[in-house]
This record gives sequence, structure tokens and C-alpha cells, in this order.
Amino acid sequence: MNLFILRHGLAVEHGAPGCSDDASRPLTAEGKSKLREIAHAMEKLDLGLDLILSSPFKRARQTAEITAEELDLVKKLELSDALTPHGTAKDLIRIINQLKPPPENILLVGHEPYLSNLISLLVSGGRDFSVVLKKGGLAKLSLENLRHGRCASLEWLLTPKQMTLIEG
Amino acid sequence: MNLFILRHGLAVEHGAPGCSDDASRPLTAEGKSKLREIAHAMEKLDLGLDLILSSPFKRARQTAEITAEELDLVKKLELSDALTPHGTAKDLIRIINQLKPPPENILLVGHEPYLSNLISLLVSGGRDFSVVLKKGGLAKLSLENLRHGRCASLEWLLTPKQMTLIEG
Repeated sequence: MNLFILRHGLAVEHGAPGCSDDASRPLTAEGKSKLREIAHAMEKLDLGLDLILSSPFKRARQTAEITAEELDLVKKLELSDALTPHGTAKDLIRIINQLKPPPENILLVGHEPYLSNLISLLVSGGRDFSVVLKKGGLAKLSLENLRHGRCASLEWLLTPKQMTLIEG
Repeated sequence: MNLFILRHGLAVEHGAPGCSDDASRPLTAEGKSKLREIAHAMEKLDLGLDLILSSPFKRARQTAEITAEELDLVKKLELSDALTPHGTAKDLIRIINQLKPPPENILLVGHEPYLSNLISLLVSGGRDFSVVLKKGGLAKLSLENLRHGRCASLEWLLTPKQMTLIEG
């Protein structure tokens, strides 16, 4: 199984008009436009996604929606509270392991520091591993059996700028 | 300080004609040609290198030489036994910390599993972190004070194929 881990794009600041709480902050116009480029890079990288699982928070959901549209995967998009900033890796792993049929290539869309803690957990078994995941950054983890502990290898980690260069 | 970590390119197999030992295995023609593309990608990524430190083993030295030629950094290339498969991270770190003036952006060229063990040591403090560094793969670590332990963050990790896409 491969886990692709994408942090949401540039969002409006806390307290902006129309954003009553953290969950309702949308992407900025620039954030949306950059994400389209990032999705094109994902197309070039040929990830073979069979599921997109996203935090329901607006900035993450919009990130997942743009990606799904550009990759023609709108029907493969699902939301999970386990990916919100208050979710737990334990719940997320349980949910993924219950999917039938088991997916081969999943894209997870969410927040920091949740996602880099998840990467650290899966590639090192703890929280000691320090990884930088920028907004719009994408990582690939490969693994045999997903579990709450060291079970994966980090295959690559791309910054949004590098994704834009790949998109060309 | 930023450490850029590059694994040597595709080399001829052990026991090929003219290769009396592991240290004398050269890059293949394909390995050399791919490395030129990778060096062009490094140019696009604008790494600002002020030193290239390489294992003296032929496949690593050739990798460093091609990179230095393409990036116009031939005078910045130095060899160090600390980067051979038998070298130690301890020696390498001591050598880097003694450089005057302290470099800001160093490219290290060497071998596996030495380099992924080095990445693991610097970003997690031990050997627990599982990272995949392919031949011609490149990683960036950022840090304040280089020491034998957890002191760095992994900023990005690129496969040779992604470097070729960036080169365009």
C-alpha cells in the first residue's frame, strides 16, 4: 500500500470575514490556483490513486475537491473526522484498515502538525522524526501492513514549489 | 546550514572487467547521462552550494565531478574518506564542523546505506527512520548546529525520476 500525504493549500487567516471558526476557513484564490498546478504535477507523477480521504475542514476539503476534479476522481473522494486537527492516527489507521476492498494508493488530505506526526509515527515509530510539510506539500510512504507504529518507508517528499516545477 | 545528500548514479556491477575492487566501479554511460539531467534539476532548484564533499570511490567521485561541472563548481569539490562505505558519520560531522569559513550549503555525495543512516541519525537521532534513497536521489536537511544526533529537519526528498521531471 502507498499512502500519499498532502497538506491543504494556502487558506485565509483566522478571524477573516465569514470564517466563524477554524473549520470554515477557505483556501485563498492563490491557494486554489497553486493547487491546480500541484494536481497537474500529481497527474504527471502517475500516483494511481483509488481513494482520496480528506479532513472535512473547509481548507482541506477544498484541497481534496480541486485535486479530485483535476485527476478525474470526484467519485473517489471521502471525508473523515479522523483527519481533522482533533482526530487521532489510531482512528485513521483503523478506518483505512477496514476499507473493502483494501485500497492500494490512498491520498490523505489534512493539517499540520497532524500529518508530519503521522509520517513520523509510520516511518520511525515515534514523534522524533522531524519533517517539514509545507502547505501544498506532498509525501509518499510505502508499506506492507498499516499499523500504529513503524511500518512504512518514506519514498519521497516534495515541496509545493517542486510540484510546480514538475508541472512545468 | 543546509545539507544536500546525493547518492551516486548507476554504476557497473561488481566484478565487471577493469573493476578490481568496489572502489573502482565507474558509472555506466546511462548513469552519467542521467546525472547531467539531475545536475540541471539541481541548477533549477538553486541550491546555492558552496562545497561539494564526495566519497573518493569512483562511482561517487564521478557523480560529484559531473555535478560540479554542470553547476560550475569544479573548484569547490573535495573528497573525504569519511564518506566511503567504511567511513563514519562521527568523522564526517567532525570534518564539516572544522571547515573555515563554515559553509552554508554543502552537497554530500556517497553511498547506501551510509547516507540514509546519516539522514536517520540527523532527523530522528537514531537508526529507526526508514527512508528510500535511490541512485541519483537527493535530499535536503536544514539545521542550526550539526552534531551526532537529532539536529536536522528533512525539507525534501526527490527521486531521480522527479529530478528529471523538474529538469524538464
